[in-house]
Amino acid sequence: MAILSEAATEVLIPLAAVVGLAFAIVQWVLVSRVKLLPSAGGGRGARDKDGFGDSLIEQEEGLNDHNTVLKCAEIQNAIAEGATSFLFTEYQYVGIFMSIFAVVIFLFLGSVEGFSTKNHPCTYSKDKECKPALFNALFSTVSFLLGAITSVVSGFLGMKIATYANARTTLEARKGVGKAFITAFRSGAVMGFLLASNGLLVLYITINLFKLYYGDDWEGLFESITGYGLGGSSMALFGRVGGGIYTKAADVGADLVGKVERNIPEDDPRNPAVIADNVGDNVGDIAGMGSDLFGSYAESSCAALVVASISSFGVNHDFTGMCYPLLVSSVGIIVCLITTLFATDFFEIKGVKEIEPTLKKQLIISTVLMTVGIALISWLALPAKFTIFNFGEQKEVSNWGLFFCVAIGLWAGLIIGYVTEYYTSNAYSPVQDVADACRTGAATNVIFGLALGYKSVIIPIFAIAVGIYVSFTIAAMYGIAVAALGMLSTIATGLSIDAYGPISDNAGGIAEMAGMSHRIRERTDALDAAGNTTAAIGKGFAIGSAALVSLALFGAFVSRAGVKVVDVLSPKVIIGLIVGAMLPYWFSAMTMKSVGSAALKMVEEVRRQFNTIPGLMEGTGKPDYANCVKISTDASIKEMIPPGALVMLTPLIVGTFFGVQTLSGVLAGALVSGVQVAISASNTGGAWDNAKKYIEAGASEHARSLGPKGSDCHKAAVIGDTIGDPLKDTSGPSLNILIKLMAVESLVFAPFFATHGGLLFKLF
Amino acid sequence: MAILSEAATEVLIPLAAVVGLAFAIVQWVLVSRVKLLPSAGGGRGARDKDGFGDSLIEQEEGLNDHNTVLKCAEIQNAIAEGATSFLFTEYQYVGIFMSIFAVVIFLFLGSVEGFSTKNHPCTYSKDKECKPALFNALFSTVSFLLGAITSVVSGFLGMKIATYANARTTLEARKGVGKAFITAFRSGAVMGFLLASNGLLVLYITINLFKLYYGDDWEGLFESITGYGLGGSSMALFGRVGGGIYTKAADVGADLVGKVERNIPEDDPRNPAVIADNVGDNVGDIAGMGSDLFGSYAESSCAALVVASISSFGVNHDFTGMCYPLLVSSVGIIVCLITTLFATDFFEIKGVKEIEPTLKKQLIISTVLMTVGIALISWLALPAKFTIFNFGEQKEVSNWGLFFCVAIGLWAGLIIGYVTEYYTSNAYSPVQDVADACRTGAATNVIFGLALGYKSVIIPIFAIAVGIYVSFTIAAMYGIAVAALGMLSTIATGLSIDAYGPISDNAGGIAEMAGMSHRIRERTDALDAAGNTTAAIGKGFAIGSAALVSLALFGAFVSRAGVKVVDVLSPKVIIGLIVGAMLPYWFSAMTMKSVGSAALKMVEEVRRQFNTIPGLMEGTGKPDYANCVKISTDASIKEMIPPGALVMLTPLIVGTFFGVQTLSGVLAGALVSGVQVAISASNTGGAWDNAKKYIEAGASEHARSLGPKGSDCHKAAVIGDTIGDPLKDTSGPSLNILIKLMAVESLVFAPFFATHGGLLFKLF
Repeated sequence: MAILSEAATEVLIPLAAVVGLAFAIVQWVLVSRVKLLPSAGGGRGARDKDGFGDSLIEQEEGLNDHNTVLKCAEIQNAIAEGATSFLFTEYQYVGIFMSIFAVVIFLFLGSVEGFSTKNHPCTYSKDKECKPALFNALFSTVSFLLGAITSVVSGFLGMKIATYANARTTLEARKGVGKAFITAFRSGAVMGFLLASNGLLVLYITINLFKLYYGDDWEGLFESITGYGLGGSSMALFGRVGGGIYTKAADVGADLVGKVERNIPEDDPRNPAVIADNVGDNVGDIAGMGSDLFGSYAESSCAALVVASISSFGVNHDFTGMCYPLLVSSVGIIVCLITTLFATDFFEIKGVKEIEPTLKKQLIISTVLMTVGIALISWLALPAKFTIFNFGEQKEVSNWGLFFCVAIGLWAGLIIGYVTEYYTSNAYSPVQDVADACRTGAATNVIFGLALGYKSVIIPIFAIAVGIYVSFTIAAMYGIAVAALGMLSTIATGLSIDAYGPISDNAGGIAEMAGMSHRIRERTDALDAAGNTTAAIGKGFAIGSAALVSLALFGAFVSRAGVKVVDVLSPKVIIGLIVGAMLPYWFSAMTMKSVGSAALKMVEEVRRQFNTIPGLMEGTGKPDYANCVKISTDASIKEMIPPGALVMLTPLIVGTFFGVQTLSGVLAGALVSGVQVAISASNTGGAWDNAKKYIEAGASEHARSLGPKGSDCHKAAVIGDTIGDPLKDTSGPSLNILIKLMAVESLVFAPFFATHGGLLFKLF
Repeated sequence: MAILSEAATEVLIPLAAVVGLAFAIVQWVLVSRVKLLPSAGGGRGARDKDGFGDSLIEQEEGLNDHNTVLKCAEIQNAIAEGATSFLFTEYQYVGIFMSIFAVVIFLFLGSVEGFSTKNHPCTYSKDKECKPALFNALFSTVSFLLGAITSVVSGFLGMKIATYANARTTLEARKGVGKAFITAFRSGAVMGFLLASNGLLVLYITINLFKLYYGDDWEGLFESITGYGLGGSSMALFGRVGGGIYTKAADVGADLVGKVERNIPEDDPRNPAVIADNVGDNVGDIAGMGSDLFGSYAESSCAALVVASISSFGVNHDFTGMCYPLLVSSVGIIVCLITTLFATDFFEIKGVKEIEPTLKKQLIISTVLMTVGIALISWLALPAKFTIFNFGEQKEVSNWGLFFCVAIGLWAGLIIGYVTEYYTSNAYSPVQDVADACRTGAATNVIFGLALGYKSVIIPIFAIAVGIYVSFTIAAMYGIAVAALGMLSTIATGLSIDAYGPISDNAGGIAEMAGMSHRIRERTDALDAAGNTTAAIGKGFAIGSAALVSLALFGAFVSRAGVKVVDVLSPKVIIGLIVGAMLPYWFSAMTMKSVGSAALKMVEEVRRQFNTIPGLMEGTGKPDYANCVKISTDASIKEMIPPGALVMLTPLIVGTFFGVQTLSGVLAGALVSGVQVAISASNTGGAWDNAKKYIEAGASEHARSLGPKGSDCHKAAVIGDTIGDPLKDTSGPSLNILIKLMAVESLVFAPFFATHGGLLFKLF
């Protein structure tokens, strides 16, 4: 048996979650010390204490005076309001959808045993009695709703924090880039730790509550728990797609008229779409991404749990072993906590050049520490030998073998992160080549950018393939599930540096809109450029883990559906495979077209305002920001339904009418094709964005020869950047949800498909 | 037994091939009646007779006088010379590669039985004696070389005909669009029929010659014959990639400086890259495509033959049944012959609007007639019942079942063709929407274009999936092979309308360069616009058939390699699947980057010439065309090696080191992912090209609101067109060769992999 007792496990997991929550609160308190408004009734002394009256380095330029600060607060308010109102609208619509879907889950799963309330023999341990299918249906529905709600909370809190931190980062930028960095990074950490801890805690509590009913029927217990993953992921889908369309419609619309036609800088307050653009960062890149990574985390935990429940852990009721996935996440929270201190407390950033290395160090530190942590917890929580379910057989695994699975996932994630950085950071030749291609115009820029994206999939795919091969060989589908967990175990750090990007982006926008001096803007731009790269890295992690997670879910699904072999040489499978591989294209077509159409509407509105509002261009007229916010909101709500429906309905339709073999093909096809599309789309977009920033920053001889802003090269780069927007922020990152969601949905509905599926083939 | 006797089969196949060849010669004679130069010593009478002195409708403008005609001849000469010299250079390099590869084939296959010259028990009919593996190696090598040579001949002849016909089409355009159409179409037909007949004839003769040695060992005989497919496809790979890089480097380079910077029209003789551009059409779109479709044809025949050889046809030595694939192609030649007459003789085109309908009618007529033809030959050549090899079992099939397989392939091809037309012709809303997106600039144009390409895969994939399911269910892998043959059975017509496009394109180029009046140019432009659509349709056919062919080859490979199951749930297969799905991206990255780099060099050279040659812009200086031709030649020869090596080496490396399971995964992954990339790339590129043409032509109220040439919308459209160039003419169409080639190569090397493969897994 394991060294760690059941009681210790019961304490350790919630403890880690609570520590994570406490750390998030501490970080939040630290951020909140930056005051946006003077303390009520405070004299000169009080103002000094809260830093509000700090001497402003560029006071002498007369740009950063008291009024400017008040303006920052005002803008922050507008952004926060827009984001809150969008999310509420979104959640209303999605809420209706989720309620309907909850009913579908209950009815479909309830029908498996004809809504009988009698116990039935277990699926795997045939000699045991399991709880009635009707109650599995009920509990699956409950955990589905819980997952969805946790996802909503994660996204919403993330957005709240980001809109709380953006103006504070702007204000801190007056003191120097180091201070601004710490504020942005701490805010990111609030979000990262809240999400990781919250996700873990809710899952842990749910398992314990469900156990009150299920008792020794762990098969049914963890089958019901998979609903949690489905709920989280469904919510994430709409969050990513809706938020992605919102942010890019606003961004593209604002850029097309502002930068290209009117020749005004980004985030210029005269541009009517500028508030919508900044709202978009918060609802897309923050709330959407938060939901997405929470979904990944929930799913990989569920996949590991459900496979473990039919392995020796489950059969022998070894609670500590069973909770190994949760323990890994618990250790992850502690490791990330220490890692964060390296960025915020142990060292201080003094110059712009230190930003990217610091962020990169976060990845390495967390990975190295986590490797030790995994070794420790594998030794403590796992028996020396145990068996893992492997498609009808039991496979013997050692605790060190499992450590190796988790570690390979973790390190594969680091490799993906580094490759992504290499292809999207303008410190390396790939992006510089793309920038150089702007010499001959937008067309060569786009050709080189697309080629870069295609090329950037090579190493990540090899890393994923090696990870799959090793962990699969060691511990079958459980190995892959824990490898995915390994990749996501440093999620708190990953989210911190990921959320840091849009916060810095917003900070820059606020500086520009509030009319602060260009030196402040330069600092926030430097933060933002590093943020672009970390965003790409975050997407790389999200996609890599999605590939592993969905494979693990796929494995759990085929086990649960009673499929022994998924043979490519069978017509049912091969047609599933080819149609599945097509789905990412269909989905991308929908989302990109949506962004395009919404952006066109935005362009028309912005043009209309420039043409009809007197004095707008001169800065004397006031643009109608609210109308642009409304256009983005309406478009994204309307446009997120069809792609959402495509993803949610495909497994149901295929499973019901074509059966589990074809559905297996669809899942495998969507996985292997979607990963490529997602990685290339994210990296292409990131590269174009940074190629543009490279020209704008003009930090090297080469960069200056392409610039300055407004040159033909720069215009070509802006076109590339605009094309990349929907690729990197809408279709690309949504694809990993497509992959995961279809797999987890298939898993949840597996009992139904196994019983009633394949109607069409049964008919003919 | 079948109604058709063996003797009748032996007569019918070569007869059809000879009739096809004769028809091609007749068409060539008809084209050659258009004289470029006056008959030697002919008086006024003689000149009237050869049409050289025909009254020229726009004589009055003084633009189309005698000197202009001579100039046409001169330009044609330059193009033909450039194309010939490029192909010779290309063939030299590829020749070396092919020779080395031939040795590899011989050594690898010879080593299967340790270079023993003794007979061995057959692989499938274990009670029979088969010829020694060493001789299989030898004959495979011979048929590989034969396939390569036939492919070279096909591509080269196609190019010769196209460069013979282009100026003649220009001259005929003086008499009207109908005359010009017939000349271009007849020239296309020369190529189509030459290729189809030649491919059939060589294959037929090879089989009969090999039979002299093999006698009753049909297993060995048809195993060796698969080398023919490999040879054809390897050659096609280099032809497509080399030609594709050539044509697009020149095209993109010419456009970037000419249209965008210097604001001179396409094909303006002042542009130094203009000859290279026109040469490119002939070496890429004509020679490359000819080799490609010949490869598809050879491979689908080989796939069908090798599966049939181990089924009842082969076991019972039923020669007529065995030759069913060749008989289908023979009927195809006759059907296409009749179909061609509908375009050239039965009806005459009077206006520009009739061009596209006439070409579309070709597709329908050939499909309908061919359906009857297939029914007839299935009834005549097949026994009522026979058995087909199905992964270790024998499956009973009826002749009507097999008819259904071929027919479904044929009709799936038509559907793919129509969908492609819908998405790439500017007569329909998708392209018009893309054109409309140019209002807001190049970025939205590109976003909409990419979305269009993604969307355009949906229906073709469903058509392919249905085709696969039905034909697989009826007759296992043989069903899929004959479905592919069905899709390619009207190849002569497909090639005719496909080759017609670049010929018209060249004709337009010559008209512009020779300084003919704009009305001539308008006519050739109309021909060319229809040609863009037909080119996209041709690519759709090529990709659809490639999917089916490679699946059939894949099936033959797993049979030959002794694989019973390719289980996605095995780690060896899943890593193959995901890496295989990545290969199209790797390959596209290479080819697109190649085009980009070569285009940059071209741009520099063109700029240099404009800057250094005095009076070039004014038309008094003469550009150095030869230098641009050289740049394109050098770049494409150099750049075609890495992508070629990637495709050729992957199956060898994977098979040798990872074994047949992983290789099966790679093939399936590359297939399901590559099809999507190829279709979307081709259609996106086609749509951008026609969106630009839509704006230029200004045929509707909407189109005029976007134009005219030189407007901002038009400039945005030109950028899209340029981006689409490498997508639609280099990476997209090369991908279907990647899919097929890896499959056929695996099949040829299957005996080796089955014996010696999987070294790495054996070691660990």
